[in-house]
Amino acid sequence: MCGIFGVYGHAEASNITYLGLHSLQHRGQESTGIVCGNGRQLIASRHMGHVADVYTEDRLAKLRGPNAIGHVRYSTAGGSHLKNTQPFAVEYAHGSVAIAHNGNLVNALHLRAELERAGSIFQSSMDTEVIVHLMARSEEPTLAGRLTEALKRVRGSYSLVVLSQGQLIAVRDPMGIRPLAMGRSHGASVFASESCAFDLIEAEFIRDVAPGEMLVVDHSGVTSSRPFADAPCRHCVFEYVYFARPDAVLDGPGVTDCRERMGVRLAQEHPVDADVVICVPDSGMTAAIGYAAESGYPFRMGLIRSHYVGRTFIEPQQSIRHFGVKLKLNPARPVIEGKRVVVVDDSIVRGTTSRKIIGMIRAAGAREVHMRISCPPTRSSCFYGIDTPTGRELIAHNHTVDEICRYVGADSLGYLSNAAMLESVAGAPGGDGSHGFCDACFSGNYPIEIPDPPAQRSGSLVGS
Amino acid sequence: MCGIFGVYGHAEASNITYLGLHSLQHRGQESTGIVCGNGRQLIASRHMGHVADVYTEDRLAKLRGPNAIGHVRYSTAGGSHLKNTQPFAVEYAHGSVAIAHNGNLVNALHLRAELERAGSIFQSSMDTEVIVHLMARSEEPTLAGRLTEALKRVRGSYSLVVLSQGQLIAVRDPMGIRPLAMGRSHGASVFASESCAFDLIEAEFIRDVAPGEMLVVDHSGVTSSRPFADAPCRHCVFEYVYFARPDAVLDGPGVTDCRERMGVRLAQEHPVDADVVICVPDSGMTAAIGYAAESGYPFRMGLIRSHYVGRTFIEPQQSIRHFGVKLKLNPARPVIEGKRVVVVDDSIVRGTTSRKIIGMIRAAGAREVHMRISCPPTRSSCFYGIDTPTGRELIAHNHTVDEICRYVGADSLGYLSNAAMLESVAGAPGGDGSHGFCDACFSGNYPIEIPDPPAQRSGSLVGS
Amino acid sequence: MCGIFGVYGHAEASNITYLGLHSLQHRGQESTGIVCGNGRQLIASRHMGHVADVYTEDRLAKLRGPNAIGHVRYSTAGGSHLKNTQPFAVEYAHGSVAIAHNGNLVNALHLRAELERAGSIFQSSMDTEVIVHLMARSEEPTLAGRLTEALKRVRGSYSLVVLSQGQLIAVRDPMGIRPLAMGRSHGASVFASESCAFDLIEAEFIRDVAPGEMLVVDHSGVTSSRPFADAPCRHCVFEYVYFARPDAVLDGPGVTDCRERMGVRLAQEHPVDADVVICVPDSGMTAAIGYAAESGYPFRMGLIRSHYVGRTFIEPQQSIRHFGVKLKLNPARPVIEGKRVVVVDDSIVRGTTSRKIIGMIRAAGAREVHMRISCPPTRSSCFYGIDTPTGRELIAHNHTVDEICRYVGADSLGYLSNAAMLESVAGAPGGDGSHGFCDACFSGNYPIEIPDPPAQRSGSLVGS
Amino acid sequence: MCGIFGVYGHAEASNITYLGLHSLQHRGQESTGIVCGNGRQLIASRHMGHVADVYTEDRLAKLRGPNAIGHVRYSTAGGSHLKNTQPFAVEYAHGSVAIAHNGNLVNALHLRAELERAGSIFQSSMDTEVIVHLMARSEEPTLAGRLTEALKRVRGSYSLVVLSQGQLIAVRDPMGIRPLAMGRSHGASVFASESCAFDLIEAEFIRDVAPGEMLVVDHSGVTSSRPFADAPCRHCVFEYVYFARPDAVLDGPGVTDCRERMGVRLAQEHPVDADVVICVPDSGMTAAIGYAAESGYPFRMGLIRSHYVGRTFIEPQQSIRHFGVKLKLNPARPVIEGKRVVVVDDSIVRGTTSRKIIGMIRAAGAREVHMRISCPPTRSSCFYGIDTPTGRELIAHNHTVDEICRYVGADSLGYLSNAAMLESVAGAPGGDGSHGFCDACFSGNYPIEIPDPPAQRSGSLVGS
Repeated sequence: MCGIFGVYGHAEASNITYLGLHSLQHRGQESTGIVCGNGRQLIASRHMGHVADVYTEDRLAKLRGPNAIGHVRYSTAGGSHLKNTQPFAVEYAHGSVAIAHNGNLVNALHLRAELERAGSIFQSSMDTEVIVHLMARSEEPTLAGRLTEALKRVRGSYSLVVLSQGQLIAVRDPMGIRPLAMGRSHGASVFASESCAFDLIEAEFIRDVAPGEMLVVDHSGVTSSRPFADAPCRHCVFEYVYFARPDAVLDGPGVTDCRERMGVRLAQEHPVDADVVICVPDSGMTAAIGYAAESGYPFRMGLIRSHYVGRTFIEPQQSIRHFGVKLKLNPARPVIEGKRVVVVDDSIVRGTTSRKIIGMIRAAGAREVHMRISCPPTRSSCFYGIDTPTGRELIAHNHTVDEICRYVGADSLGYLSNAAMLESVAGAPGGDGSHGFCDACFSGNYPIEIPDPPAQRSGSLVGS
Repeated sequence: MCGIFGVYGHAEASNITYLGLHSLQHRGQESTGIVCGNGRQLIASRHMGHVADVYTEDRLAKLRGPNAIGHVRYSTAGGSHLKNTQPFAVEYAHGSVAIAHNGNLVNALHLRAELERAGSIFQSSMDTEVIVHLMARSEEPTLAGRLTEALKRVRGSYSLVVLSQGQLIAVRDPMGIRPLAMGRSHGASVFASESCAFDLIEAEFIRDVAPGEMLVVDHSGVTSSRPFADAPCRHCVFEYVYFARPDAVLDGPGVTDCRERMGVRLAQEHPVDADVVICVPDSGMTAAIGYAAESGYPFRMGLIRSHYVGRTFIEPQQSIRHFGVKLKLNPARPVIEGKRVVVVDDSIVRGTTSRKIIGMIRAAGAREVHMRISCPPTRSSCFYGIDTPTGRELIAHNHTVDEICRYVGADSLGYLSNAAMLESVAGAPGGDGSHGFCDACFSGNYPIEIPDPPAQRSGSLVGS
Repeated sequence: MCGIFGVYGHAEASNITYLGLHSLQHRGQESTGIVCGNGRQLIASRHMGHVADVYTEDRLAKLRGPNAIGHVRYSTAGGSHLKNTQPFAVEYAHGSVAIAHNGNLVNALHLRAELERAGSIFQSSMDTEVIVHLMARSEEPTLAGRLTEALKRVRGSYSLVVLSQGQLIAVRDPMGIRPLAMGRSHGASVFASESCAFDLIEAEFIRDVAPGEMLVVDHSGVTSSRPFADAPCRHCVFEYVYFARPDAVLDGPGVTDCRERMGVRLAQEHPVDADVVICVPDSGMTAAIGYAAESGYPFRMGLIRSHYVGRTFIEPQQSIRHFGVKLKLNPARPVIEGKRVVVVDDSIVRGTTSRKIIGMIRAAGAREVHMRISCPPTRSSCFYGIDTPTGRELIAHNHTVDEICRYVGADSLGYLSNAAMLESVAGAPGGDGSHGFCDACFSGNYPIEIPDPPAQRSGSLVGS
Repeated sequence: MCGIFGVYGHAEASNITYLGLHSLQHRGQESTGIVCGNGRQLIASRHMGHVADVYTEDRLAKLRGPNAIGHVRYSTAGGSHLKNTQPFAVEYAHGSVAIAHNGNLVNALHLRAELERAGSIFQSSMDTEVIVHLMARSEEPTLAGRLTEALKRVRGSYSLVVLSQGQLIAVRDPMGIRPLAMGRSHGASVFASESCAFDLIEAEFIRDVAPGEMLVVDHSGVTSSRPFADAPCRHCVFEYVYFARPDAVLDGPGVTDCRERMGVRLAQEHPVDADVVICVPDSGMTAAIGYAAESGYPFRMGLIRSHYVGRTFIEPQQSIRHFGVKLKLNPARPVIEGKRVVVVDDSIVRGTTSRKIIGMIRAAGAREVHMRISCPPTRSSCFYGIDTPTGRELIAHNHTVDEICRYVGADSLGYLSNAAMLESVAGAPGGDGSHGFCDACFSGNYPIEIPDPPAQRSGSLVGS
């Protein structure tokens, strides 16, 4: 889970990148980085934390140059170190190069073992580093050639922006698993994981980068090519369900439209007698609005989300039930008390949070609680860039819907069907029946095979 | 604009206070403080910043003792200094005393001049300091007696919690302008500006403190008295319109209920042909839901609010239109494009923000934009504790609704009538026709006379 | 233990004060403050920490105005709180006033009890706050009059700088216990605890403020008066022994001259056969140079002081002998090994540090270790502003020199006699036989009586 | 200019390393790092700043394992970035490896160009990274074999500690240019740039690592080998003159002894009629003591060094003469006034500071000022690890002693001769006539040839 941004030929490239990354902050809150290029040098600035906290006026002022790429990274277990921040940037025989990556390479460990055997040293634990080593060992004379050669070796999902002293390259994997949009701002080319990043910086959305497309931007303009073998389109459907911002428009449909349609279909598939439809804010809100509209029951704000959630709170020793959830959510008792409540959320992962939320709604006096989920049960891990837990931790991996319903304590539980979910996206304004989707986390059908990991490696370096 | 909290007789009083203040964070984000009492000492900890950032485990660990009061303070011009943080705490002839105040005293400067003439020195610029000086000069033998004598001299609004080495006193001004709720947690008495602060700490809501009521809590229990002359009830109606949290229940009605009813009445008073009802999130959301339900047009999320708004953002030199608003809000274009849009907000202060929001909605392709405000025009300053600008800065102070409509660029503009606003609160479940309200910011009818300020004072001490 | 600084009529008063305080940093490292005046306002900035860390360009830039006073404060137990930083500044009937105090008032608690009975409230636990309350209750029409009236009530030691909107007053107690120097810089009057503060700011030393002298500086110039009854001069002799900087010239003699003479007299009073004279750096260095010169044995650097001592170090669990001392000092083994060593220090307080140092010297191979102290045994607490431990904790309070010698593990121990110490100061160039000294910490002869503390107070407020 | 430390087989290896690095802090204040090994992993922690500030209890607690190496780094222009902190640590085909380096490789850029041509990528701008790449490309089966093969390719100075998951290797370049000492602490082997690092941690000094010696430490003990071709010994003489701590004993002689002897020889070579001998503290102190002893004139503290020098000070606009020097040094006027002063310092680099110091001494009233320098004129840059300016910036590069004397404003100027400097070290107790020294910065005789830099590289990556 990451967000990427790139700009070429803008008088204030690093400031634009900083604002673009701020718009993509929901895609990763652990660390962020910007590398800018001024023709001669690449200048890097990578830090743990949020974009708005990390980039002071002083730091931005040092990032001078007309080209820049940036990255926001999600907090994942085991790798929360400065060395794992992106853009990853190095010097090699052809000068300096930086790369920002959204996605996940499934054969990275195999390639790494092969490279190490050939004498490469690794400083990070990121799959992205493999791409740069492959580029460094390529004999191709151009940046695009080296990058293409490297990407032909990797398997997995990637949307990338790559910056050298003279060029910016944006590229999307052949199946288009992760999103990537192209825009234009004051004559400069811009790229971002989601189109909504263009709004703040007053860039115009041009189009989505096509699956398998490589765009090379330099002083002579923008050149598009399709260097990879054709592959079926497999956009990540979970971006529409949960991950992307509601104001994003991804490969056609708007996310808000898709989510409302999921709510409508959910009401059709799982109707129930009720007094009020509420949501788990903010992620379940749009689907709840759709559910309410279709069901005819009023949509009301029955759970209030705190705006002031900090990193860690100090709990009393005499501990508080559902402390973690209570810090974020609180019921508006008069909305719930004595009512038959439908509560809409976007997913159930381990089930523990849903259980707490339903407990909280019951404690506020609800007569019945009916949970509705705007996607199918999450049964399998994602290996293409979404940080889902391993299969075993997913409650739907080895429990039926009835079992889950009992565990979370709902009077009824309904999940949207896979077909209805896919139709909600395909059928939304801007949607296109010809697009295929990756729904592996729901269906277990992985469009790219996941190899066994290589034999255990001996090296293990942690820390900052 | 402040929030107060108090607890007496709890094993983890300061931790409970810290969590209570976190729940009241929306009432003031500039500074926060806790004073706890352990029978012998009062221990104070006051800081600039948010509750969650200020109170580390180390700081809380030092605040040992079974009684505590706390305060969150809003950022107001000219006084953003550590010396103006509360609880205000001093030593005087009767030991130590601390006080946390929500409200505003309209005769503070007159009393201060009088006290200075009698030899008092002042360390803060807070009106609250006057109360403590008056207590120090009182001959009354009890804390309650000294506090009563002091409060009989002041005029204005106040909800107070006062902590001495042995007692906690909670008191509300005779008109009950600012709210104050009483609860119970594990045998301890708790007080908070809003009832929603009780939910996180698992306290039970008992009742609102009555206007003019003083509650003295000590080892012998809770004693209620009404030491002041009777006065008409004048709850602040703006708490219901905007300031209180949606999950609060204030003097009877729940805030979410009131706001939805305001939206319903607004749709009745100002109907319009439209395609979609959107809100300015989050404050206009509940009224928009009511408006949509009553009008029959769909409620949709047409403006998305960023969750990652930091303190200051660095704008490019080639500046961005409506930069400040854009950092917070972004339109979901497919929801708005080509539509006749009703946008509901809770108030228009200077008009500049509304103008930018309407500009943003139009830029996203709206065909028509109809603004609806869930209260009457804000025409007058508040002198009782809400930080409204001076009259002159309020656009409704000297402009008609038509002029405002033209300024903000809407196709139509409708404000809720004063009567409908008051009825929305009085008629909500839990509402009570017998309660009077202060609506001075809308009507100009000030329930407590505002005296002229005293002749210019010679002293002027600023800084930290 | 504090340092004070004041300047009137300088274009960059706060910057000059900041540099002056930096030169006085050795007099107090816990907290520091500056209050500047611009004719209309006093602007205060008080913080925990060192001058160089506290005052950023931003903070200094806010302290605009031609007049300023400043303070550095020593860390003392129980009162390390922001509320106890100086200059103490308040508003009262006559405007704003700030005060910076070096010294200690022995009747502060009695006066405070009296003031509290009359209705005063106290915000700090500093004796200095009493002076301001007394000024506020004075009927005198001028600042100098009010200050004089207040100071006539207090007993103890004080060098003060007081700043109002229009005047700066510098005053020294009738016995002149604590130092205070007057200088001139670019037409502005400056005052500082030690003359060496003038060197960095390019001010010219004019003269010491006389005991009992009050200097009022305003737009009409500098006026000197002696408002108090005559009293015998009692300069603190410990300033010469240890506290003042070696480059200070205090009431005549230079500190380095005095300390070398103490070393010379120490060699005369306590000769010993030795191979090398070393010092405990830096405080014992100057006396060791004198001892070596007089004894004829070579002075060498046998103990090296670390330049990088931070606040706290993390010790291994398997603990290190003399860890605290070792962090600061390390022997140069070849200087010490096999030698008869004289080690000169300026004082022995509890004896624990000396014991560790002698252990370290022996571990480095010294054949004999003879300790020499450049003042008499420290037998009594100081009540006039030096932070000595209470009598009981002073090893010389109830142990003979022989007992101390055995405790610290020296082969011999010699203290300078009281007479020789006083003669070293009086007889140094610039010294003056007519000056009397306070040597209470050595002799127990207190020039100002120490009253019993008043009956236990009920108030006790701690924290920040 | 760096310091290195290593420990193998200690229950608290990282804490010991942290304390060892603190003792070496004078060798580098810009950044510091520790890498510890627990058999399976290497755990790294690298940061900008001083050891005492960087390593909190939390950070140390994460560095668990019985083996560790550490590094302190000097601030050098252009490379002040986190990526250039050491120990440099990576994963490669043989596991994880970390390296800490004191010294400088003169053929690093040539090797780097060669490695890049073969497909290596570089993340830092440190010469040390080259060693690791060479190790990664070695076919040798052991760590020692790979390190030896790599070091046979490099030319320059190096003292290194290298840590793998199972071994610690310490090695010193064949000429022994930079120091490296070996000790023993509670059964663990320890290594440090200077022996004084052993004192704080209670380690016993065993011996210096010999030039060209490699020590491999693992669970089977310590194995010494000499894998390189023989070379003449060339200890850096500047360590004795200035860089090492006075309490260090390097390859035989103690530093304090050497410096005093330099002062004695300086008095013999450059006598002058004088009243007092003072030093530029602290670096000139020991030589000044020797000068005074030999000349018979008294050594006195005429310049006082501030203990409170922070990073940056804010200067008034109406600027102060010699502001930078005045912040650090202040004359004790009575020591200097009217006197013929000899001032001893350890070197003159650009001459600007000496000029300011002499100006300050004259302003304090000195009658004559005679400067004496305890080494020969610094005429050439160091390419082996001491951060001297380029030749052109060195005042002695193209000025005679007479010209320098006039520039700094002294009445006379005397430098120690090269022969006397070398004899001072060789003839000190523990010295050994058979040792050769590198005195290239004084003589221009470089023991290792400095190659021309390779053709300009195209890559240039800066930042953190």
